[in-house]
Amino acid sequence: MSQERIAVIGAGAFGTALATVFALEGRHPVTLVGRQPNLMADLRDDRMHDTALPGVPLPDALQFSAEPDAVAEANVVLFAMPSRAQLDAARHYGPYLSDGASVVICAKGLDRAERLLTDVISAELPKTPLAVLSGPGFASDIARGLPTAMSLGAQDPVLAERLAQVLSSRSFRLYASSDVIGVQLGGALKNVLAIACGIVEGAGLGESARAALISRGLAEMSRLVEAMGGNADTVRGLSGLGDLVLTGTSHQSRNLSFGISIGKGEPAQTVGGPLVEGAFAASVAARLGRKFSVDLPITDAVAAIIDGRLDVMTAMEQLMTRPIKAE
Amino acid sequence: MSQERIAVIGAGAFGTALATVFALEGRHPVTLVGRQPNLMADLRDDRMHDTALPGVPLPDALQFSAEPDAVAEANVVLFAMPSRAQLDAARHYGPYLSDGASVVICAKGLDRAERLLTDVISAELPKTPLAVLSGPGFASDIARGLPTAMSLGAQDPVLAERLAQVLSSRSFRLYASSDVIGVQLGGALKNVLAIACGIVEGAGLGESARAALISRGLAEMSRLVEAMGGNADTVRGLSGLGDLVLTGTSHQSRNLSFGISIGKGEPAQTVGGPLVEGAFAASVAARLGRKFSVDLPITDAVAAIIDGRLDVMTAMEQLMTRPIKAE
Repeated sequence: MSQERIAVIGAGAFGTALATVFALEGRHPVTLVGRQPNLMADLRDDRMHDTALPGVPLPDALQFSAEPDAVAEANVVLFAMPSRAQLDAARHYGPYLSDGASVVICAKGLDRAERLLTDVISAELPKTPLAVLSGPGFASDIARGLPTAMSLGAQDPVLAERLAQVLSSRSFRLYASSDVIGVQLGGALKNVLAIACGIVEGAGLGESARAALISRGLAEMSRLVEAMGGNADTVRGLSGLGDLVLTGTSHQSRNLSFGISIGKGEPAQTVGGPLVEGAFAASVAARLGRKFSVDLPITDAVAAIIDGRLDVMTAMEQLMTRPIKAE
Repeated sequence: MSQERIAVIGAGAFGTALATVFALEGRHPVTLVGRQPNLMADLRDDRMHDTALPGVPLPDALQFSAEPDAVAEANVVLFAMPSRAQLDAARHYGPYLSDGASVVICAKGLDRAERLLTDVISAELPKTPLAVLSGPGFASDIARGLPTAMSLGAQDPVLAERLAQVLSSRSFRLYASSDVIGVQLGGALKNVLAIACGIVEGAGLGESARAALISRGLAEMSRLVEAMGGNADTVRGLSGLGDLVLTGTSHQSRNLSFGISIGKGEPAQTVGGPLVEGAFAASVAARLGRKFSVDLPITDAVAAIIDGRLDVMTAMEQLMTRPIKAE
């Protein structure tokens, strides 16, 4: 395998975790790039990111930079910032990308215009091959070298395969997919369903109800993915189902916690609604359902609850008294 | 809807919970039938089953009997005992079943000869139409009227539909399926995978690994179901996936607890291996994989760990270093 140079942009928990696991593997030089010079200097000196990944030592081989031109030498560039900051990153770092570089989008979301992040970024970087990373992987698990497996999607299957090989390590395993639509929708929609899991938990409806919600939610997610040109099997794998299981059952998840607060009766606006990826994705996904004529009862209920148009008990009532049909 | 008479055989937690939710719905007369006269008399007098369902009042409308002929008037008879006691129940109660009665098997397992429970019971009760109930439903959730959804499978779709209607209530929703193979395999195989989830947890491998295991496990379960003539979509629903999510993430589950003990290094024999349904199902499922030439790496690993042929860390090592291929 030829040597590649990796740059991870975004020094939050997820970006730092990715850079750490790549550097620990040691096959390729890795640079973590952020915009705050003080933070990047501290990380280089302390080899510790106390706020994002407390207790995880950053490997000696990992390099740090606050300069955008640090991405120029990399041929694999990971965009590890939240969905809403992806376009700005493309504008800021795009001019420095080398001709042969591929960009891997590491965010799970949809934009306000109901576009996938690959569409948003390719409009800004039309010549750059794009890929997406999605699936069940908490930053702290990845950074600590615990076993994790995620999906790496790119339209070009050769690129997907190459990137999956380059970025995989002993503990961090990437499965290649050419279904960019499915991989992205799985990541975005699972956040909406994780909020629903939280609502069920917050309202004290029990673990059986949550499990039923996850399986009905997977069916819902599959329908929308197929209607939008993706493959339902993709969201039955790591991106989608795997990620939904992680986000919907772990108290480390912000989307779940947000849902729990709502389920307990707190208004969405007071518990940070607009900043939670799934809260934003809920209304976008509900609109996508109408646009593609796909029935999304759980997503619609989550969007309506967040908007204050529906209360939790009425929503559960409606979901439970839908006509029973075959699965 | 015509009136039906329901008998639930088995006064453990699950049978008592089913009888409770049916009686609360109040549409049909319900009798809970057990073999211990003292227990049945106590339940009738106390309206409480302190060992099986502490704190849950049993409805006044629910009737109790320790006589096998109590099933004679019922046209829907639920067998709510563990897999290993199903055949004995068929022999004991079979002679009392009325001609028009259907039996609903409420256990999740395979027998030693690799047969589905419907095959085991139909050999004993060849004239009785059989159905199976499977999916994510903890007894305590069902009995307390929390929202639950499960699959009701029968080869005859008309029977499946009728039974799903008869047994559904506001809180307890049954989805009809004509895929008896898929519904049963989903229930049996998820126990094996739940043990795997427990092993991952006990060994401290993290929630991301558990989520990846569940999604890879679903793929494994789907392959075996298809090879055995079932429909993969069935196990992507309530029976299979939904149940796996519940069993694999909830500490109320015995299969999960068993796995956790093994993951911590305790030998399977000392933590009650033979009594855990999934421990028994693991070796049966592994044999089924070989018989039908289906690759079941997780199931094989669980069976080998339980047999003492493989240690946990070597198993994880093998699972994680399998060649990476597309999902």
